[in-house]
Amino acid sequence: MFSRNTYIERRKQLAKDVKDGIILILGNSDAPFNYLANIYTFRQDSSFRYFFEYNLADLAGVIDANSSEDYLFGDDVEIDDIIWTGPVASIKERADKIGVKNSGSRKDLANFLQEAILKGRKIHFLPPYRTENRNLLSSLLFIKKDHVEKFASLELRKAIVKQRSIKSLEEVLEIEKALETAYQMHTTMMKMAKHIGTYEYEIAGKMEGIALSGGGPVSFPIILTTHGEILHGHDHSQQLMKGRMLVSDAGCETPSGYCSDITRTVPCGGKFDNRQKEVYQAVLNANLAAQKAIKPGVEYKEIHLLAVKTLGEGLKSIGLMKGDIDQAVQEGAMGLFMPHGLGHMMGMDVHDMENFDESIVGYDEKTSRSTQFGLRSLRFGRGLQQGMVITNEPGCYFIPALIDKFKSENKFKSYINYKELENYKDFGGIRIEDDILVTDKSSRVLGTPIPKTIKDIEEIMA
Amino acid sequence: MFSRNTYIERRKQLAKDVKDGIILILGNSDAPFNYLANIYTFRQDSSFRYFFEYNLADLAGVIDANSSEDYLFGDDVEIDDIIWTGPVASIKERADKIGVKNSGSRKDLANFLQEAILKGRKIHFLPPYRTENRNLLSSLLFIKKDHVEKFASLELRKAIVKQRSIKSLEEVLEIEKALETAYQMHTTMMKMAKHIGTYEYEIAGKMEGIALSGGGPVSFPIILTTHGEILHGHDHSQQLMKGRMLVSDAGCETPSGYCSDITRTVPCGGKFDNRQKEVYQAVLNANLAAQKAIKPGVEYKEIHLLAVKTLGEGLKSIGLMKGDIDQAVQEGAMGLFMPHGLGHMMGMDVHDMENFDESIVGYDEKTSRSTQFGLRSLRFGRGLQQGMVITNEPGCYFIPALIDKFKSENKFKSYINYKELENYKDFGGIRIEDDILVTDKSSRVLGTPIPKTIKDIEEIMA
Repeated sequence: MFSRNTYIERRKQLAKDVKDGIILILGNSDAPFNYLANIYTFRQDSSFRYFFEYNLADLAGVIDANSSEDYLFGDDVEIDDIIWTGPVASIKERADKIGVKNSGSRKDLANFLQEAILKGRKIHFLPPYRTENRNLLSSLLFIKKDHVEKFASLELRKAIVKQRSIKSLEEVLEIEKALETAYQMHTTMMKMAKHIGTYEYEIAGKMEGIALSGGGPVSFPIILTTHGEILHGHDHSQQLMKGRMLVSDAGCETPSGYCSDITRTVPCGGKFDNRQKEVYQAVLNANLAAQKAIKPGVEYKEIHLLAVKTLGEGLKSIGLMKGDIDQAVQEGAMGLFMPHGLGHMMGMDVHDMENFDESIVGYDEKTSRSTQFGLRSLRFGRGLQQGMVITNEPGCYFIPALIDKFKSENKFKSYINYKELENYKDFGGIRIEDDILVTDKSSRVLGTPIPKTIKDIEEIMA
Repeated sequence: MFSRNTYIERRKQLAKDVKDGIILILGNSDAPFNYLANIYTFRQDSSFRYFFEYNLADLAGVIDANSSEDYLFGDDVEIDDIIWTGPVASIKERADKIGVKNSGSRKDLANFLQEAILKGRKIHFLPPYRTENRNLLSSLLFIKKDHVEKFASLELRKAIVKQRSIKSLEEVLEIEKALETAYQMHTTMMKMAKHIGTYEYEIAGKMEGIALSGGGPVSFPIILTTHGEILHGHDHSQQLMKGRMLVSDAGCETPSGYCSDITRTVPCGGKFDNRQKEVYQAVLNANLAAQKAIKPGVEYKEIHLLAVKTLGEGLKSIGLMKGDIDQAVQEGAMGLFMPHGLGHMMGMDVHDMENFDESIVGYDEKTSRSTQFGLRSLRFGRGLQQGMVITNEPGCYFIPALIDKFKSENKFKSYINYKELENYKDFGGIRIEDDILVTDKSSRVLGTPIPKTIKDIEEIMA
């Protein structure tokens, strides 16, 4: 946890920005696995941790935006339960520790909110993503269950986005801690991927174990696949085969709740063949071009376009594309090879605040999501600011179903060399991803460098 | 997965046992982690897997108990989505593969159930343990959300308990697979626990990584603690210190969905001191006495009583108890040292079918839960049958709050040597757990033996 003052300042700022009403930030409850008492490892809501720290189930934080008065609600362990739990801090003690003045039980929370409602005060809350919290909001605020989202506060979301988007030095240090573990995860993957015949789950399991041994869970279910072209897949059942590339997209959380998110792609067995080298270098060039261009003031949408243009030029030199690449980018042809966005904001959530509504997280008054295939998948397009942490993750995929679809629709005929592309339908996919901090004048790739050049990867896999 | 015929036979038997009405078995849906699209690793409902196999979200199985006609419901991947998912089997293909005759969409399920209800047919379903399924049952069956449990079918639960309680050879082999991984997990723990200063989470993370590398998740959140006396704790933040015992209670699931559940307790650093040796041997003797006595026809409640009696005799020889141990057991004095039950049924759930209702899983017409402190925590007390798999997990804990409570209430003064007990308040706890198959005339400890004698543990930690 950070200092008591950090939490006090964050809450004070939030009250100031929201200005009026009662701010309610619900923590998460336990999520049952295969019966009520067997639960998934607890994951606290990130905004709750940001303002109220505790990684414990069934808590709620409240801030009166008018008076800045703050409250921590939760039930104390009963005296008889201490036999089973050992000595446990009380809610009051916990509140004190993070500088929260008032505390109470869950029943007190219900009464507090009911009184506020009767006084006609607006209750600001975040859109729920867990069914339990939707139900809880429904019962606390007397809103019909299926309509809770409609009442989620835009002011509150905007105020939180304003704070959480800009990372403090201590937050950046936490992210770098998560990246140290990610370094271990991915270099271990590289060493294991040298052995043809290894199962994907053996490597993924080893990597998740490293994350857990670092004290936090993985920041999202590990993607580890020799079929990188399947973008929505979490299957780990395949054996590593010669000639395939292994895409490994994985990160972890620190005990304080900050993420890392890294992708590396390596040749199964440890040696790139020529075809792999060419495509890999094209993706790496896109990654490096973006990396160089990231700085305050630039819209991330522009960086995305620069990356896909660089990728297109690489593919042209291989003979997979042709014609005017600038034009190809503008018309959306790059979506065939890279149908996803270049990156997203990262912090306490691996897609930071994704549950808030993208129009206020990834875009703003000046920017909005494109409707063009490919570019429309860019989660984050707005202007970069010092202190933002974003991912830079270009990729190139040969998706047989998509190639066939575009070809049959005669799409982008003047830019795509469909004849040559037929030879790549067994290729798979490549993605290279780093986490980048926007600094005062430019940017910095966070963490210890994880091998990403062809030479460095072949060296560590040797 | 097992053979097509296995699933067909199981469903046929279930229809036969339930006799009348429509059997509805809901699979699980995805559980959000920190926002809607970031989910916990999917865990299917065990009964769904038992009858309908697939470890995939948003499926439902239906069996008409009168006609034995069966149905698999779920939504197919849309053609456009295949770009992202790669080729995926259809619901119809999946149904065929497990011998289910009919298939349909989730909308079809809703219509099917509505028609059945209009025809006045009874719908049998299991009590939900996930909020999503409670909501789904409410909307499918037109039952108010907070009253869904009241309508859960007792006949269905009894019929499933009848089948799932008795493990087939192929199920036992799966459990032994899970035990091979547990062997790796616990022997790794022993080797790591030799190093004073190691953090609990480093060991727990390593163990969970081994589980995942075996292809399945952990069967429950790992308990790994140098404070074994805290029974309801999942904290892993402590460093291993000389003089403490490390309790490691952990198991895994196989990709087919069968569990292991093993506890070992070892001295941090690798060498038992004399006090530890004495208490450890008392617990081990209880474990071995129970192991020897487990056989068909005996009530597990009796085995529990035998184990705590053996423990009591051990504690008497150390000087912590006194008087007539048989009498002490009968009056409930052993609850001070072992406030939990000796074991539980295990299979696809680590506490098999715990969500069903204990009176039909762990007890029956002839047996019921005791109200006595200690014995009342025994989850499984009924008569043993060939093919059952149960855990044998005696423990001995020195819980300061409980000792103080009992002492202040003058409880069991004639059996407990409170004066001597004061010297053990810093001891912690010990538990030793194996998974046991009830055979035709006796029983068998499943899996490769994991060191549990003092000699074997000191040897592997040397």
